[in-house]
Amino acid sequence: MAIVLGENRYGKAETRLVRVTRDGETHTLADLNVSVALSGDLVATHLTGDNSGVLPTDTMKNTVYAFAKEHGVGAPEQFALLLARHFVETHTQIRAARVGIESFSWERLGPHSFRRQGDHTRTAEVTVTVEQAQVVTGLAGLVLLNSANSEFHGFQRDRYTTLPETTDRILATAVDARWRHLDDDTDWDKSYTGVVEALTKAFVTTHSLSLQQTLYAMGTQVLTDQPEIAEIRLALPNKHHYLVDLSPFELANDNEVFIAGDRPYGLIEGTVTRDDVPPAITEWYP
Amino acid sequence: MAIVLGENRYGKAETRLVRVTRDGETHTLADLNVSVALSGDLVATHLTGDNSGVLPTDTMKNTVYAFAKEHGVGAPEQFALLLARHFVETHTQIRAARVGIESFSWERLGPHSFRRQGDHTRTAEVTVTVEQAQVVTGLAGLVLLNSANSEFHGFQRDRYTTLPETTDRILATAVDARWRHLDDDTDWDKSYTGVVEALTKAFVTTHSLSLQQTLYAMGTQVLTDQPEIAEIRLALPNKHHYLVDLSPFELANDNEVFIAGDRPYGLIEGTVTRDDVPPAITEWYP
Amino acid sequence: MAIVLGENRYGKAETRLVRVTRDGETHTLADLNVSVALSGDLVATHLTGDNSGVLPTDTMKNTVYAFAKEHGVGAPEQFALLLARHFVETHTQIRAARVGIESFSWERLGPHSFRRQGDHTRTAEVTVTVEQAQVVTGLAGLVLLNSANSEFHGFQRDRYTTLPETTDRILATAVDARWRHLDDDTDWDKSYTGVVEALTKAFVTTHSLSLQQTLYAMGTQVLTDQPEIAEIRLALPNKHHYLVDLSPFELANDNEVFIAGDRPYGLIEGTVTRDDVPPAITEWYP
Amino acid sequence: MAIVLGENRYGKAETRLVRVTRDGETHTLADLNVSVALSGDLVATHLTGDNSGVLPTDTMKNTVYAFAKEHGVGAPEQFALLLARHFVETHTQIRAARVGIESFSWERLGPHSFRRQGDHTRTAEVTVTVEQAQVVTGLAGLVLLNSANSEFHGFQRDRYTTLPETTDRILATAVDARWRHLDDDTDWDKSYTGVVEALTKAFVTTHSLSLQQTLYAMGTQVLTDQPEIAEIRLALPNKHHYLVDLSPFELANDNEVFIAGDRPYGLIEGTVTRDDVPPAITEWYP
Repeated sequence: MAIVLGENRYGKAETRLVRVTRDGETHTLADLNVSVALSGDLVATHLTGDNSGVLPTDTMKNTVYAFAKEHGVGAPEQFALLLARHFVETHTQIRAARVGIESFSWERLGPHSFRRQGDHTRTAEVTVTVEQAQVVTGLAGLVLLNSANSEFHGFQRDRYTTLPETTDRILATAVDARWRHLDDDTDWDKSYTGVVEALTKAFVTTHSLSLQQTLYAMGTQVLTDQPEIAEIRLALPNKHHYLVDLSPFELANDNEVFIAGDRPYGLIEGTVTRDDVPPAITEWYP
Repeated sequence: MAIVLGENRYGKAETRLVRVTRDGETHTLADLNVSVALSGDLVATHLTGDNSGVLPTDTMKNTVYAFAKEHGVGAPEQFALLLARHFVETHTQIRAARVGIESFSWERLGPHSFRRQGDHTRTAEVTVTVEQAQVVTGLAGLVLLNSANSEFHGFQRDRYTTLPETTDRILATAVDARWRHLDDDTDWDKSYTGVVEALTKAFVTTHSLSLQQTLYAMGTQVLTDQPEIAEIRLALPNKHHYLVDLSPFELANDNEVFIAGDRPYGLIEGTVTRDDVPPAITEWYP
Repeated sequence: MAIVLGENRYGKAETRLVRVTRDGETHTLADLNVSVALSGDLVATHLTGDNSGVLPTDTMKNTVYAFAKEHGVGAPEQFALLLARHFVETHTQIRAARVGIESFSWERLGPHSFRRQGDHTRTAEVTVTVEQAQVVTGLAGLVLLNSANSEFHGFQRDRYTTLPETTDRILATAVDARWRHLDDDTDWDKSYTGVVEALTKAFVTTHSLSLQQTLYAMGTQVLTDQPEIAEIRLALPNKHHYLVDLSPFELANDNEVFIAGDRPYGLIEGTVTRDDVPPAITEWYP
Repeated sequence: MAIVLGENRYGKAETRLVRVTRDGETHTLADLNVSVALSGDLVATHLTGDNSGVLPTDTMKNTVYAFAKEHGVGAPEQFALLLARHFVETHTQIRAARVGIESFSWERLGPHSFRRQGDHTRTAEVTVTVEQAQVVTGLAGLVLLNSANSEFHGFQRDRYTTLPETTDRILATAVDARWRHLDDDTDWDKSYTGVVEALTKAFVTTHSLSLQQTLYAMGTQVLTDQPEIAEIRLALPNKHHYLVDLSPFELANDNEVFIAGDRPYGLIEGTVTRDDVPPAITEWYP
């Protein structure tokens, strides 16, 4: 038996970049949080502290800023591909680069004035190896709520089941979604807008018998509307709204007054996929 | 010399309430975080544990939910006044009640479907005593940015000053504002919308020589546009955007590529007030 | 009626400083988060953007780092006094300086190795004017729990009261305390240790009929043990532990199984003071 | 081409449990945050909303509380195994259960008095299938710092490299570690203590030429000291401490005054494993 080094990677996480592009008086803003992770032949630094194959994480940070100047920042997927390819192509000991980007939206208030949008965050996770590239887009923090058309009944019961059945409950969730693209070249912004619309439309229009059913409807809608997406993975917390018992005060509560609970919460996770797509080249969700 | 009890209060903090109002198929949502604090003759419980004058904080929570049913939830200021008056009027040992509310906005997606808005949070802090009422409205987390028309120069220098003067910098802040109303009866929602518009307009249109100047312009705009406001207090973090030095890579950086800093940050705090208004009945900002 | 500038101040918040002091092989660590706020004659920058009286907040940051080198960092109160006095003494337009420090503790593991302690954070808030100085020490995040000797009964009831009386409950809180010193010169570290011990001892040994009673016992213990303290203010959340109803599973629950609740929580705030101390020169708690 | 359901699971996350065990006057406290996720034959609820195979997440919460009473709470690994086995054994449609537990430590202050320790959190992730069980223990938030014996030089340089070489820097990290056990029956508490000691000892005693070298030394120490561990995965942020340039103030800075940076940070991730252990039955780190 021997003790050996297993899977490993290293990089610079959370480099905060704001890129202003000027077209006369009119400015455009890109506001990103960029994380880079590299893997490859890194045994020496682990075993002996020989750093001859180690590109400093400080250099990765510099590269993010320099590339923002040299190449501009387009869609986050595109900027991530550019960075990831650079590291793999210019450093032979690096076999794979993963670049993750959080992108924050700003609403325009004037030619050079902006208000940050807090609705949700767009994400991109790009993996580039010497042979392949994989692009995963995502979003986090999109909070949706239906106050009608949600039921939950007919479920399994055991000794520890006390939940009453219901034909009318609040259904609320904070959508955490990631979707893998078939290709590494598409109209990223148009694709993103289409996915958000599909997710929202399916949430709103599905008469829900379970959050699982809503999840599957959301994933199906995305794959139906957006042919460029191979598969989508959704993690939907069931943000419980508990009906308050007002009977001690001789008041009825006909689904009007709710406690918005923090913890615990249900957590429904599922993948919806096309059955004929090539497999992912690496794990693409945490 | 004796050891004595000084100022004190107690209450229930962060009661999370969602109130659905139904008008046929069309639902309306109020989503609040309500905190109640009461003060008055509370010496006995501190000194001997005699709780005969202590209304349980659990009762305050129940009252929030029951009132949401009995009276509905209108503007947060109105609901806070209703609650605060109730505690002072029905419990003689209570001399003052303070009700704070955070109100979360939802955008309508359908008759009973909603998306939570994350831009900023509206707040209300109401204080009611046996004689008076004071209403303070506020907002938190409104992030604004100008990428032009901001300068900073001509400042004082001492031995520890290294900051270069600039005639072109990014000005960004997360507005934290509170404003005291002259009266306890107004059109709260209309007033709120007017203040947010005034704050935003002044931020966008002020050519800024210092964040203090912008702060004062924002406060003045609010008091000019909204006669129902007595005074406004603004706490504006200066969210620094540092120009990246790209010269080692033989690249220019003409105000294009910035590091968005986390800490430290400037913090500019100031009050703008009418000179003829009655004083506040109690401290109204933390 | 005119619109005028009211109270205002400005500064640099959250300058993160780590100071290593070397005594041969043995190192000592100071790990601080320093916030500076200055007030005085600052009208011009607000009204016209004339910054001639404005010392940049960047200079405040530089001063923190330079002073750490020139003077070392002793107790946080001492370092805060040094900084605050510097700003008031060297800049005539500054009438008052407030320096707040969070101090993070590290446990020694070796001559130059340390583990960060996460129990609680020590704070200092120092205000210096041209005439006076005021020192407030504090702590945040000290979480204490008694699983016996806590009761709550005999309280007031109204229409909305449903809480059952109890003679045995869990009492848990996260102590947030601030205490004002009589003088601006004492053995700060010894005083701090004494206060933490007094707070803890009183929490542990008080048979509690209400959290207010425990609060008052904690404050009294501090003033009894520590003659250098003028007054203490405690904000104690009542971190509710709800007994789980296990009767549907035909199980008893004799105060064994609890839900640790997040929100809402009780919040008990109170000041314990000597009756013969000079008043504070400024508000000293937020 | 068809759209199909892929991998999925569901459960109740973050059930907060406090369990008091009484031995006369002396109480013992278990303070846990329990998350359950089940997978198996769950197609029907996704496709049609047929919930006949869906055990409600509310039942999982009830089971956590009822089991705490019926079986007590021992080590978190043991409680997680008990819960996971229950779900797989009693519900035939469930093929795998994953139970994750965060465990919070309390220091004893008296027979029934405690202070919460904030140093770090112990975690357990247990996966049980119909054939196998896998136990992963972990910790999060253990912050360690060496102010000597850390160097970084001899690294690769490219066009974007500006980092100076150093033979003396601060090395600080917040250890996030997870380790897989060879067996599902061991002395969990003793094993945990041994791992924490091994990690800390290796961090303190390694003269570090790179954080990768320190990581590997920490993992090797754990596997050397603890024969019950199959492999360990470490994610070590490099919490940068930047030397302040005091030369504008004509002050030297011989590694005495540092900025503690927030973002960006290095992130070094690696696995150290025995070369003869059976593979994991499922992904065991996020």
